[in-house]
Amino acid sequence: MKNDSREYIFEMPMKVRDYEVDSEGIVNNAVYLHYLEHTRHEFCEWAGLSFRQMHACGIDPVLAKVTVEYRTPLGLGQHFVSRLALDRRGPLFVFYQDLFTVDGAPVVRAVVEVACLENGRLTRGLPLVEAFSKYLPEK
Amino acid sequence: MKNDSREYIFEMPMKVRDYEVDSEGIVNNAVYLHYLEHTRHEFCEWAGLSFRQMHACGIDPVLAKVTVEYRTPLGLGQHFVSRLALDRRGPLFVFYQDLFTVDGAPVVRAVVEVACLENGRLTRGLPLVEAFSKYLPEK
Amino acid sequence: MKNDSREYIFEMPMKVRDYEVDSEGIVNNAVYLHYLEHTRHEFCEWAGLSFRQMHACGIDPVLAKVTVEYRTPLGLGQHFVSRLALDRRGPLFVFYQDLFTVDGAPVVRAVVEVACLENGRLTRGLPLVEAFSKYLPEK
Amino acid sequence: MKNDSREYIFEMPMKVRDYEVDSEGIVNNAVYLHYLEHTRHEFCEWAGLSFRQMHACGIDPVLAKVTVEYRTPLGLGQHFVSRLALDRRGPLFVFYQDLFTVDGAPVVRAVVEVACLENGRLTRGLPLVEAFSKYLPEK
Repeated sequence: MKNDSREYIFEMPMKVRDYEVDSEGIVNNAVYLHYLEHTRHEFCEWAGLSFRQMHACGIDPVLAKVTVEYRTPLGLGQHFVSRLALDRRGPLFVFYQDLFTVDGAPVVRAVVEVACLENGRLTRGLPLVEAFSKYLPEK
Repeated sequence: MKNDSREYIFEMPMKVRDYEVDSEGIVNNAVYLHYLEHTRHEFCEWAGLSFRQMHACGIDPVLAKVTVEYRTPLGLGQHFVSRLALDRRGPLFVFYQDLFTVDGAPVVRAVVEVACLENGRLTRGLPLVEAFSKYLPEK
Repeated sequence: MKNDSREYIFEMPMKVRDYEVDSEGIVNNAVYLHYLEHTRHEFCEWAGLSFRQMHACGIDPVLAKVTVEYRTPLGLGQHFVSRLALDRRGPLFVFYQDLFTVDGAPVVRAVVEVACLENGRLTRGLPLVEAFSKYLPEK
Repeated sequence: MKNDSREYIFEMPMKVRDYEVDSEGIVNNAVYLHYLEHTRHEFCEWAGLSFRQMHACGIDPVLAKVTVEYRTPLGLGQHFVSRLALDRRGPLFVFYQDLFTVDGAPVVRAVVEVACLENGRLTRGLPLVEAFSKYLPEK
């Protein structure tokens, strides 16, 4: 999983909410998937097609596979930045998503593969390919 | 808020999942609302009308008001019991919900007022009154 | 529960994260307690004493009682504002916390009573009274 | 990621709690990590060394990497079973964790790599190797 050479197309600052920290004093492992999902949805909205709009059009993105490497744990009240790159692999959208501390230390490196359901059936998600065309690498 | 004289009509054993414990070493305050909701849904299913079935019939219960007194905090892996009584107040269903440690110490005492939306409009929830008639006090 | 005449001392903009919305298409009832907690913690940090700092000094605020009235439900991606007023009642800190849509419609009106544990024992929380003195009403 | 030939050493029945279902009508992707964590903690407790006991001894397991394949989504109130196999790879504990519907359809197939912190430093987790020796494959 090499995210290093990726060119990020979107980033946003985030901050740990204290209820996301578990009894070990660090952000619970599942919460990072919430950070990653929220970043994808903010990216989609920013790129012009919000999750709510997709749903209204009968398009529901669903996760096919997630790989997360945990590097530096986050703690109470910590600021961090969430960065995202986008690619296609066959019918899937592949999001390369990395979180960093404000000092640039890697927090989480993730690869998220997303499939598209249109009216309940798996498709190649062409409406999304079109909507996000300028953020996808040229083929 | 006197739940003491209530006759509980449903109870279920539960156990803290460790991710529900926050950095103070105790179950986070919001998680108790999840315990209470899950208990109400289990009660409804047990009484013959699951949340999913209600939704399929166009009935969506929504919370109007919640009052929670926090008594004894729960910690990692702790067992507890969730008990429920039911009443009506005007158009509302009123759930009296109490959590106890296995030793009987009160964990949380809550009053949860629920309104009914039928196809998006507030109603008196008569289909639910009928479904739960034998669990409601006689008037 | 009259929050109307309160003078808010802190407010912050927030936005629904889509994973906070449940199968009814609205923000789950427990999530509002997370919004309220996050707002209190942001207020404390802004006022000069973060939750992490309190904990490091041996002070742990714990909830004694929460009352939440649910008014207008929030949905996917919705923006809202969180406002807070502060008072004392005996040994308790009382937070009056209200959420509003961007159009000013009330979302949630809550009263949150917080007790102070110092090194595990209930106290009057005098270090916090001092820290927050300029935000507390004169007596 | 072939979990198929694994011999599971622990399994437990579980049920979706309705608040875990998001606006798409299926269990949110992050919630599966909670199911997996809860299963690991239940396994550890059952095997004689609870998470709380580990923590009291200064041992904190932390996630190094998680890979999750999402197959069949779960919905409101659905029952499922969580199964677990255990292996070692270098200093890491590797959990192969699979969720299945009651009909045996795969829900999630996951590989979870866990490192051990002892008093804050990464170790080979020898106290855990000993505690779980009868569940680890012979080398």
